[in-house]
Order: sequence, then structure tokens, then C-alpha cells
Amino acid sequence: MPGFIGIHLGAGQHSETLWPDYKKLCHRACKKGYSLLASGATALETVTDVTALLENSPLTNAGYGSNLTWDGHVECDASVMDGSTLHFGAVGAVPGVKNPVKLAQHICKKQRCNALALGRIPPCLLVGNGAHQWAEQAQLATVHSKSLISDKALKLYRHYKKKVERYELRIDKILTPLDTIGAVCVDACGNLAAACSSGGVALKHPGRVGQAATYGCGCWAANATFHVPAAIATCTSGCGEHLVRTMLAREAALEVQRSSCTVTGLHHAMKTKFLESPFLSGVEERLGGLILLKCIPSDGTGEFLWTHSSKTMCISYMSDAERRPRVLYSIDSCIL
Amino acid sequence: MPGFIGIHLGAGQHSETLWPDYKKLCHRACKKGYSLLASGATALETVTDVTALLENSPLTNAGYGSNLTWDGHVECDASVMDGSTLHFGAVGAVPGVKNPVKLAQHICKKQRCNALALGRIPPCLLVGNGAHQWAEQAQLATVHSKSLISDKALKLYRHYKKKVERYELRIDKILTPLDTIGAVCVDACGNLAAACSSGGVALKHPGRVGQAATYGCGCWAANATFHVPAAIATCTSGCGEHLVRTMLAREAALEVQRSSCTVTGLHHAMKTKFLESPFLSGVEERLGGLILLKCIPSDGTGEFLWTHSSKTMCISYMSDAERRPRVLYSIDSCIL
Repeated sequence: MPGFIGIHLGAGQHSETLWPDYKKLCHRACKKGYSLLASGATALETVTDVTALLENSPLTNAGYGSNLTWDGHVECDASVMDGSTLHFGAVGAVPGVKNPVKLAQHICKKQRCNALALGRIPPCLLVGNGAHQWAEQAQLATVHSKSLISDKALKLYRHYKKKVERYELRIDKILTPLDTIGAVCVDACGNLAAACSSGGVALKHPGRVGQAATYGCGCWAANATFHVPAAIATCTSGCGEHLVRTMLAREAALEVQRSSCTVTGLHHAMKTKFLESPFLSGVEERLGGLILLKCIPSDGTGEFLWTHSSKTMCISYMSDAERRPRVLYSIDSCIL
Repeated sequence: MPGFIGIHLGAGQHSETLWPDYKKLCHRACKKGYSLLASGATALETVTDVTALLENSPLTNAGYGSNLTWDGHVECDASVMDGSTLHFGAVGAVPGVKNPVKLAQHICKKQRCNALALGRIPPCLLVGNGAHQWAEQAQLATVHSKSLISDKALKLYRHYKKKVERYELRIDKILTPLDTIGAVCVDACGNLAAACSSGGVALKHPGRVGQAATYGCGCWAANATFHVPAAIATCTSGCGEHLVRTMLAREAALEVQRSSCTVTGLHHAMKTKFLESPFLSGVEERLGGLILLKCIPSDGTGEFLWTHSSKTMCISYMSDAERRPRVLYSIDSCIL
């Protein structure tokens, strides 16, 4: 059995008119993921390549087509976690890298060599120009920063920038977190991995790093062990700072691991660790969502769930049980 | 009663010949912290100003005198956490800012305004040039990047760079993590806060961000609540990537909160969450340390502890019970 791939295109407020396009993209991504798994790719390779495919689409707020910063540039966050090694690799606010998730994967894989010369440790998180430099050295595709700007992102930027400059002090809840992406996967060997990628919120301050580059916040993956029989991979989406302060990716994974029922565990995690979290005290709107894959290798079972407090979430998956990808446009559903 | 201030100058391998200088610096820092508390400063203001004083010393690997990156620049990480609001502010790989911890505090304080125009959320973590830009806008002291390079750091850089270039492939365990700094504090109102600051490991890759800028990893502070009677503040030091993967600041705080005995709780945390952590599987040397402040407002008691697996750790504190700061040069002590 090749395995399972699950993806999301963000917890937010998706445009219904674009739904057919989202659907097509989900189809392509899941099919690619499943064929990679069938050809023997690892979970880490699969989540990376599927996320890179999503980054390349102008529909998503990741890689090409990302939201622009306050001063009109694209700066991307991305991370991956390998459930078999528990290694994590991430890039934050990186300019001019075609596929930030591939750079995150490269950083993650480098950690297998325990130390560099003079006992230096390979990094987990690289940011800004230093991250770009690492991409060049690793011979990953680097591009002129401007080539990552899509027409749609530029139009939105100009529209909102004008609005903010005109009414700086008025707070309108217009820019909802949207269209960040991620994937969870289990491969034929039973290893899990997770990845996420985000261009960040529109008009963000240059250098701002959100959940997609922060350990335990954007994605999480841990294989089963002798003491913990359930393997879990998660991927979050929503308001970056709120997902960081609540460490939702890791907290949801731990909560589900502790719970005998996955649905109850995830429901409890979303309620106590996010919606009612003391770390979000004073926050009116708590917008977030996540996808979660749980596998129990000892009995060969697996479950895929999602939950979101945002208006919509776009989810897709493909497993050994389906002949084609399933795509769901989840509305107003706090828990599956 | 004004409160309590505890600081550390890093878990590592301190030079004994510099011990009198470390001692003097600790004295100055604790005295400053205590007088701030006596004049009514908040815990957050106190940890920030004490950490800034430590940053200004060429003895510490933070602010002026930080280790240099592979290409010879100073890039600093720092963060603060406010136990009363649970807000967190951090900067990563920031160039040319005199006191990175003051910038982290500014970012932390900004979070009190829940949203910016158009519903944008104030950032938790800013990195690189974007962080520098924020410092300029906030009118915090920015300096030419070169002015943060001390003679000692430059000499070390040249020495090690030559060594690495000559024997690139040979791994010598020479560069131990050292001299990062941090502070924990409780003020007269019973609020806790923590801060940390680090120049990162010598010859680090440009853009590398370590524990001192990562949520839950470099520092942690949470006041007591109705459900959790113990307030805790922690600050870690050691190998950045290992402190990130184990989230030691937060994990130690939670472990002590759960435990009826602080010493047992901290011992257990250091053992299970760091020294035997599954997240450090394959890592031979697990070098880290932390200081921890626990206060129980309901009975007016407090405890200050430290633990380290590194050769030495330099610790200092001052409370209502002492007339002058206590300074300790802890050797080979895994737990107080």
C-alpha cells in the first residue's frame, strides 16, 4: 500500500467563484502526491513536492503569488517536520526562493549530519538573505524577488495599501488570513511527515515571521514509538501570531495522542488549546484550522480529520481506499 | 517588597581567569535590576533593562561583543515574555541594533493593541533587516553593524575561521555554546517576566535563528491563575537547535507547575525533556542549562533554581532577603 496524502489550501474565507480552480489544484496535488508514494518516495519527499506544487500556483498565498509586505516584496515562510527523525527545518521571511518548502526540506535533511566542523550544529531555522544564500549554495532554484509577484497579489496590495493610508486609524476586519497551504502524509514504510508554506498576511511588516516557520506551530510530525502507539502529523492555518502563541500544531498532536478517541481529542484540542486558550486572552476573533493524520501501525489503521473556526477551509486527500482524490470545501464546520 | 531578579551569563565552559570580571558584571546587573524594582518598575521593564546592561558588556555573547557569523557580521537573537499578558516579542538575526532585547520588548508591548488597521495583527517575531527597520521606526538605538564587533570576537573569528578553512572536514568539539544571557524576575505586584539574548554560535550561517528568538525555547513566563497556583519564569542557555527541538523553557515551566516539589520537577524536566529527550536522538553531547523562578502568590513564597549539563554556568540573583547580589559559578552541577 503506497500510503496517504492529505492537503489543505488554508483556513479563511475562500471565494466561491474560484472553487472550480481550487478543486482542480487539489486534484493535481493529491494525484502527484499519491503517485510519488506509489513510486516509493518517502513521506518527507512527498509532502515537500506536493507543497511545492501548491506554492507554484498563483491561487495560493505561498511561493509565487504570495501576499506582499508593507513595502511591496514577497517574503516567504515554510517548514517541514520528519516524523521518523523528529527533525525540523524552516525558513522565515526568505526573498527570491522559488520553492521555500524545498529549502526547508534541505535544512531538515542536513540535520542528519550531527555536527559541522568545530562542533557547529546544522541550523533549524534560517531567515532573510542568509536563507537565500543557503538556497544558492544548495543549488535550489533562486529567482529575482519580483518574479514571485502575481498580478492578483499586486492588485490586492495596491487596493489595501491605499485603504490603509487613507484610514490608518480605522480598524476594518478585511484581511482575513487565507490561502496558506500544507500537507500531511504517511508513506509505504509507515513514516509520517508534514509541511507548510505561507506568504504571510497581506501588508505584513518586512521581516515578520509567522507560524509556518515556527517550530511546533505550523506543522508537526512524530512516528509511533514503543511508548506512544499513535503516529500523528498535523498542519495548521489561520492567524499566524495566534497559532504561534498557542503552538497549535504540536498541542493538537499531543492532545490526540493522549485521547482514546481521535474526534474527541481533536475537538478538545481546538476548544481548550485554541478557542478558549489563555494565550489568546483579549483576542476577539480566533481564526484557525488544522488537518490531522493519525496512524496506528500496530493495527494498520489511520484517520484523517480537520477542524476550523474560520468561515471556510479547503481540504483534499487521497488514500489507498480511493481511486481519485476527494476534495472538500468545508463551511462553518468547527469539527469534522 | 520590591521583588526578585535572577540572571545567568550562559551555560558553557567559562574561563576561570575571567571570573572576577563575570562577578563584577553580575553584581552591576543585579543591583540595577533590584533598584529598578524598588523604584516601581514592572518585571518586564526590569528583565529588559538588566538584559540590555548585559548585552552592552563585551564579556557576553549578546549585543556588543557577539560572536560573528561565517561572513563576519553580528546578527542577534533576543526575546521577552510577559507573564501577566502571556505576550511574547522576539527578534532574530537582526543586524545593527544596539540592544536587541529592547526591540523584543517593544514588539511584545505592541501586542497590547489587538489589531492594526485592516485587522492586521501585530507581529511576534521580526527578523533581519525588517527587524532593524522596526527599531528605527520605534526610535530605538540603531548603530553601524561593525560597531557591535568587539576585539575579542574578531580575534576568535579569525582564529576559528582559519582553522575551519584548513580542516573543513575534521570535526573538533571546540566551539561550545557560551555566554548567552538571560533574566527572570518578579515585581512588587507579583507579575513575572523573562528575557534572553544571544549572538548565536560562532561562525553560524548568516540568517540562522536560535532558541533566544524562538517561542517557548529561550524564555518563558506565566503568572499564576485561578487554575494554576504557581507562577513560573524560565530562561535557557546552551546549544540553540537542541533547546528549540526540546522547547526546554516551556517544558521545564510546565513540568515544575505540575510537580508538588520544585527541585524534583526541575530535575525530572532536565532528565526527561532534555537529557533523555527523543527529540535529541542521535545527539552525543546535550549541552544546556536553565534558571527558573517559581512564585506562589497565595502563600507569598518563591524559589529560584538552576540546572545545567554544561561544564559551568554563571548565575546571580538578588531578593528582598539579601543586602547584596549573590553570584555563583556553578561547576559540573546538573541540578541545584
